[in-house]
Amino acid sequence: MAVSLKETVEQSDTRLGRLFDFSIQALIVLSLVTFSIETLPHLSSSYKNILSALELFCVVVFTLEYIARLWVADSKIAFALSFFGVIDLIAILPFYLSLGVDLRSLRIFRFLRLFRILKLVRYNQAVRRFHRALLIAREEIVLFAVVALILLYLAAVGIYYFENEAQPEAFASVFHSLWWATATLTTVGYGDVYPVTVGGRCFTFLVLLVGLGIVSVPAGLVASALSKAREIEDGKELFETDTKDCR
Amino acid sequence: MAVSLKETVEQSDTRLGRLFDFSIQALIVLSLVTFSIETLPHLSSSYKNILSALELFCVVVFTLEYIARLWVADSKIAFALSFFGVIDLIAILPFYLSLGVDLRSLRIFRFLRLFRILKLVRYNQAVRRFHRALLIAREEIVLFAVVALILLYLAAVGIYYFENEAQPEAFASVFHSLWWATATLTTVGYGDVYPVTVGGRCFTFLVLLVGLGIVSVPAGLVASALSKAREIEDGKELFETDTKDCR
Amino acid sequence: MAVSLKETVEQSDTRLGRLFDFSIQALIVLSLVTFSIETLPHLSSSYKNILSALELFCVVVFTLEYIARLWVADSKIAFALSFFGVIDLIAILPFYLSLGVDLRSLRIFRFLRLFRILKLVRYNQAVRRFHRALLIAREEIVLFAVVALILLYLAAVGIYYFENEAQPEAFASVFHSLWWATATLTTVGYGDVYPVTVGGRCFTFLVLLVGLGIVSVPAGLVASALSKAREIEDGKELFETDTKDCR
Amino acid sequence: MAVSLKETVEQSDTRLGRLFDFSIQALIVLSLVTFSIETLPHLSSSYKNILSALELFCVVVFTLEYIARLWVADSKIAFALSFFGVIDLIAILPFYLSLGVDLRSLRIFRFLRLFRILKLVRYNQAVRRFHRALLIAREEIVLFAVVALILLYLAAVGIYYFENEAQPEAFASVFHSLWWATATLTTVGYGDVYPVTVGGRCFTFLVLLVGLGIVSVPAGLVASALSKAREIEDGKELFETDTKDCR
Repeated sequence: MAVSLKETVEQSDTRLGRLFDFSIQALIVLSLVTFSIETLPHLSSSYKNILSALELFCVVVFTLEYIARLWVADSKIAFALSFFGVIDLIAILPFYLSLGVDLRSLRIFRFLRLFRILKLVRYNQAVRRFHRALLIAREEIVLFAVVALILLYLAAVGIYYFENEAQPEAFASVFHSLWWATATLTTVGYGDVYPVTVGGRCFTFLVLLVGLGIVSVPAGLVASALSKAREIEDGKELFETDTKDCR
Repeated sequence: MAVSLKETVEQSDTRLGRLFDFSIQALIVLSLVTFSIETLPHLSSSYKNILSALELFCVVVFTLEYIARLWVADSKIAFALSFFGVIDLIAILPFYLSLGVDLRSLRIFRFLRLFRILKLVRYNQAVRRFHRALLIAREEIVLFAVVALILLYLAAVGIYYFENEAQPEAFASVFHSLWWATATLTTVGYGDVYPVTVGGRCFTFLVLLVGLGIVSVPAGLVASALSKAREIEDGKELFETDTKDCR
Repeated sequence: MAVSLKETVEQSDTRLGRLFDFSIQALIVLSLVTFSIETLPHLSSSYKNILSALELFCVVVFTLEYIARLWVADSKIAFALSFFGVIDLIAILPFYLSLGVDLRSLRIFRFLRLFRILKLVRYNQAVRRFHRALLIAREEIVLFAVVALILLYLAAVGIYYFENEAQPEAFASVFHSLWWATATLTTVGYGDVYPVTVGGRCFTFLVLLVGLGIVSVPAGLVASALSKAREIEDGKELFETDTKDCR
Repeated sequence: MAVSLKETVEQSDTRLGRLFDFSIQALIVLSLVTFSIETLPHLSSSYKNILSALELFCVVVFTLEYIARLWVADSKIAFALSFFGVIDLIAILPFYLSLGVDLRSLRIFRFLRLFRILKLVRYNQAVRRFHRALLIAREEIVLFAVVALILLYLAAVGIYYFENEAQPEAFASVFHSLWWATATLTTVGYGDVYPVTVGGRCFTFLVLLVGLGIVSVPAGLVASALSKAREIEDGKELFETDTKDCR
């Protein structure tokens, strides 16, 4: 019996294992939806009761899942200290902790429930390919992140000197200007702060000319690294198929 | 006669077939333009009469086309149940249904006329290449769609905790925050909602740093998959040319 | 003398030819700057006189250039009817036409002076590579332009149904909605029109999810086609070098 | 002793050299943070004193570093005139110059301190790969920069003719329109200026259709050039390994 439980919980290539995985994933999404609806203002108390019941149900199932995983693990300590072992615990702990303390501090612990979303990562095999792609383009991404940060800082200092006098509120300091630089170089452009002086606008023009190339390059790097990662995986599969054929 | 009608309607490599295809496509565009102009407020009644006449003309031709396609089809039931058979029917049905009912519910059926635009897809051979490209990069696109959705959700929850107290209207719930997250991570940045607290702005900075790479990668994936799809097609054509040469 | 004039005007690999090309290009930029400054409001009459003098100087030189090109051309009619022959004429004609007519219609002819900027294209050899890249990716770019236009239209119609009642001014018709769709799908997001209803925001979310991939793919296509065009050119140069070596 | 100092200062593959490099980089970041905090309005005098002390400390260390580098350089004049020799001097000079002049002009010299950030570039080996990538795609980047500038100008002139009458303030001249063109074609879209006439909106639609492809292509070019640069580097390393193996 313990063997079939182990197979159900840990493997995903049997029918029961797939059903178990799918059920847990559906519950994670349900608990996130519950959490989101709870934040809506002006909820009637009847709705709140339904949400609390759903919340209780999710926590009970997640607790049973954690106990089951701990039970079937070859090394109980290794699982408890593994990345997903810790996440599984953090995902249920806030609920039990909030039972022992007063209601005020409850709000802080609700934030921790967010880690449940990382459980989705546990079941997604395709994430490994993305991880591999990040490793391939690691150096370039770090380089561009550094260059982009330097550019952001230079843009913020530059606009501070041009706009500080004309708009002492919006561009009060280099930190305020950094907010403008972020919204501008990512091309979000909320429109809450923007240059109004001729100098500031010419500076923005120059910064955008240089900056767009810098900021949007990493996406291209990840895309090309991802296609390389797929080629490597395809190569491995071919190799494994060849090896099987040789037997 | 039935044979030449069949050729005209179903094939596009004869002169009559091309003329038929082009006429239908022109009529689809005309009916869409008519539909758009009808939505303009303060239209004079003389304009409305012209638009109604054009509308009637389009529906009559589309009805004749549907009957012709049904007539020449090898299996009438197979065509009626096929994707484009259903679309062709949906494109004309609302008009006839609106004759039998009162004017109030007319508005709802007008919406269905939109499906006519999908008829353009029917005649566009190049769509197949795009379809092939989507199949090549299917896994990566699904992975990035999932990662992007998780990121959107995390960004929404994060900004909710930072901005809810400062802007209880704009960031009233996680759902309101999702609207902000959508507008920000796609870099649209309408400027109707934006963070004002220091914490919210720092959080936005971090989310954009990570998020831009995630959200704009799929476009690169599609572009590279499309060039692969072209290579595959070119290879096939070469193969076919070779085979022809061998005869 | 006619031979050396021909070399100076038509070729750019001699010292005099390069000097001639550079002078003309500098004058084009000067005439564009002049034109831009003229549009500034509240210009003093002394500045206006200087600008008129510069304008006169440019037109005289461009006229002399046109006469010289016509003079040295092997076939005068062929040059006069060629793309750049027509542009050169259009660039100077408005000035002479405005001498014969009253001042009111002058404004319209000033618009034609813009074609002068296309003269810059005449001297830029690298434009040919871009032209070649566009030819390589022609089919894909047309496909994506069509798909993007269909998506724009569907987005406009969809948002019209969601937002028309809530914002009868901003989303007054499908044409008004097209302006929103343009600003949103290109991620410009001015913030002059944006959805406020829950349905409209969810629809925007879905449209952006699909649309961003479609709209930003062509740039990737052009980039990859451009690298292919460079490979083809490098191949040609190698071939030509090989051929020269063989002599 | 001079030898070990030389090794510490100039090389980064010994333990002392790495420690020295890391300390200087940390100090650069510290001095930039100090500079940024100083721009905050309403700072208490006690904070200002701490910042001044940190500033003094940084300048002293940078001065000692400059003297050390000058001391150990093989050719003192070559170092003093080298790019980083000049930057190192400019980074510390403003502080000493501000001691001799009155306080008003101090503000201008503070701007020069920004060059210190370029010291970070000195220690970053990965910058060379980026430099190589820029050299590979140089021609294409220049071409697209020129085409993008022409497009920006044409967009500015076009929108000036469409919007000048409707919005004489926002689109007062071609230069004002250039600000709109910059914010629009980079898709930043602050929303401070946007077209309101039908003609202006249709023109914007057309400009964006053409412009997005032009403006976002260079990023793709840099990304592909960077992967080429990595391939070239990998090839070199392989070659060097091979050469070593042959010994």
